[in-house]
Amino acid sequence: MALRHYTLDISLSTAVDTASTVPGLLAIFHEQEMTETVHDTDGHGYLATFVGKNGRFAILRLHSHGLVTVDLQCFEEDNIAQLDNLLNALEKKLKILLKGNITRIKRLPALVRGAKVDRYWPTADGRLMEYDIDRVVYEEDSAYQNIKILHSKQFGNILVLNGDVNLAESDSAYTQAIMGGGKENYAGKEVLILGGGDGGILAEVVKQKPKMITMLEISLTVIDGCKAHMRVTCGSVLDSLEGDCYQILVEDCVPVLKKYVQEGRTFDYVINDLTAVPISTEPEEDSTWEFLRLILDLSIKVLHPDGKYFTQGNSVNLTEALSLYEEQLEKLSCPVGFSKEVVCVPSYLELWVFYTVWKK
Amino acid sequence: MALRHYTLDISLSTAVDTASTVPGLLAIFHEQEMTETVHDTDGHGYLATFVGKNGRFAILRLHSHGLVTVDLQCFEEDNIAQLDNLLNALEKKLKILLKGNITRIKRLPALVRGAKVDRYWPTADGRLMEYDIDRVVYEEDSAYQNIKILHSKQFGNILVLNGDVNLAESDSAYTQAIMGGGKENYAGKEVLILGGGDGGILAEVVKQKPKMITMLEISLTVIDGCKAHMRVTCGSVLDSLEGDCYQILVEDCVPVLKKYVQEGRTFDYVINDLTAVPISTEPEEDSTWEFLRLILDLSIKVLHPDGKYFTQGNSVNLTEALSLYEEQLEKLSCPVGFSKEVVCVPSYLELWVFYTVWKK
Repeated sequence: MALRHYTLDISLSTAVDTASTVPGLLAIFHEQEMTETVHDTDGHGYLATFVGKNGRFAILRLHSHGLVTVDLQCFEEDNIAQLDNLLNALEKKLKILLKGNITRIKRLPALVRGAKVDRYWPTADGRLMEYDIDRVVYEEDSAYQNIKILHSKQFGNILVLNGDVNLAESDSAYTQAIMGGGKENYAGKEVLILGGGDGGILAEVVKQKPKMITMLEISLTVIDGCKAHMRVTCGSVLDSLEGDCYQILVEDCVPVLKKYVQEGRTFDYVINDLTAVPISTEPEEDSTWEFLRLILDLSIKVLHPDGKYFTQGNSVNLTEALSLYEEQLEKLSCPVGFSKEVVCVPSYLELWVFYTVWKK
Repeated sequence: MALRHYTLDISLSTAVDTASTVPGLLAIFHEQEMTETVHDTDGHGYLATFVGKNGRFAILRLHSHGLVTVDLQCFEEDNIAQLDNLLNALEKKLKILLKGNITRIKRLPALVRGAKVDRYWPTADGRLMEYDIDRVVYEEDSAYQNIKILHSKQFGNILVLNGDVNLAESDSAYTQAIMGGGKENYAGKEVLILGGGDGGILAEVVKQKPKMITMLEISLTVIDGCKAHMRVTCGSVLDSLEGDCYQILVEDCVPVLKKYVQEGRTFDYVINDLTAVPISTEPEEDSTWEFLRLILDLSIKVLHPDGKYFTQGNSVNLTEALSLYEEQLEKLSCPVGFSKEVVCVPSYLELWVFYTVWKK
């Protein structure tokens, strides 16, 4: 049983006069059979809490610097219309009482807390986002990570790894961007995909008749979940771990990359689709950045001199993380050049940076 | 001075045992010099509120059905690290006390309430979205509406009309969609734009050398704001109300459309870029839908038999509103056909439907 949490905030151009404002508001709470406790705030404005029937609970704060905040919590099964009416009555009364001094009235969509299906998945840059998720399609804990596939009305199924929105069925823009923005020709090429367990990149590259695609995905659980529930993204390409021109190795990419380096094997394209903080069975490096650099270094080593390395970067707003990533590119054992592109991936709800890296 | 509001919600597989859980939590609040009031909830679980220094206020609820919710409010200037530590300590303690029964721990990004710059602009389908807005660039109340231009780090400047996100400088996808998705050739054509005060459509159509564009925008305030602050969108096209192949009439479109109908004037393209609930000086129809249909009917009347009418629809999730719109299309005085497309407009944070309408 989830808790609905309503807020009503009124910003004012002047301080609030408690004596002339509070009685009219109390009357409204009393009408709804809510009983107040007035708290001593030690000079930080007026603060009353109200307990009502059905577990209803409210807070009224008149902050001394010109802000009134109202909180109202009720259970999801409560009479929502009644609570809407209470908030409407409070808003109406406050408009009358504070007339002329109001600079903003803000009522946010209710927060739904502790719901069976969690709809709040913040952006990479830490902002609150409510998705239109109506059901959990798949959930497994593998040895490496928590894997969820959630259904969004508009985006289709969304793969969420360790709480990060990874890819939705609506996100062909992601796949296109990490394949070079539609400017590459994969026909007859040797392609290496790191990660990519949702099958999106594999399904698209296969269409272009490459010579061979090798995909190194650590988690069979991700593959199994996506094979069943992300078919708009992967089509039938995950139904078998081998096809005419591809093989999926369910392995940690680090030791395999090391083996390829030793063997002197090269690829025309390396597409790094690992999660932002890569998962490995051998995290031999202490810091995430060192580990990221290890993978980058190995990837560039197996890149054909004329080849291209594609990867997702980060939220365009995380400028510091992007700079740090670009610093890693300066520290590789082989000098590289790079370019970047900002892309709108529908389900991310924030713009995302993609990189192209090549050997100098 | 804004209020920061933190939440910590722990979902459980069983009911919470208050007696074994509460004392350990109280100790943490006491360490932070917060004093509790325990409220009588009439059988709806444990509820305590805490008042601390600097106007800090907290709520601890142990709901009887297996949910623990914590709220923590403080002022923006408070010692945020200290409050993070309090929440960390509560989370850590709850993890120990409720070990084995926890199904989800959720801490949302703090709500910032009553801030100078408001970052919360819900989607058309009513979901909570926090934008990366860092300043108000422009704000005016015209006779028709409240006009804001807000700066987003990732989207550039965003035009917000009466609280609705209208268009951002990042949103060339909107302009492209409402011009027919790049499949039309405007060269030598007669074009009518309804609304469009941000200048985005005008700037793009002008590039294609049409015969003449007539734009009917009711608000000079919108034009002036966008001319100054949305230049990525409008370029220099709003610097003058007339150009080589365009004229902007600062007028209510309804009487002008009626005049065009009387004169028998037709256009190859009519692009309706009015706000979702159109603004008019003559709202002669009672319901929004009737008013929308009036504008649609007049627009189709001035459409050349081979012409096309483009318009934005609504959020793809508002299926009922979309159906109602499509019903209006059945009721026009001239029979029409239509098609629709779902487009990702970056700053909308939800997928959007665009319509193409033509005379049968």
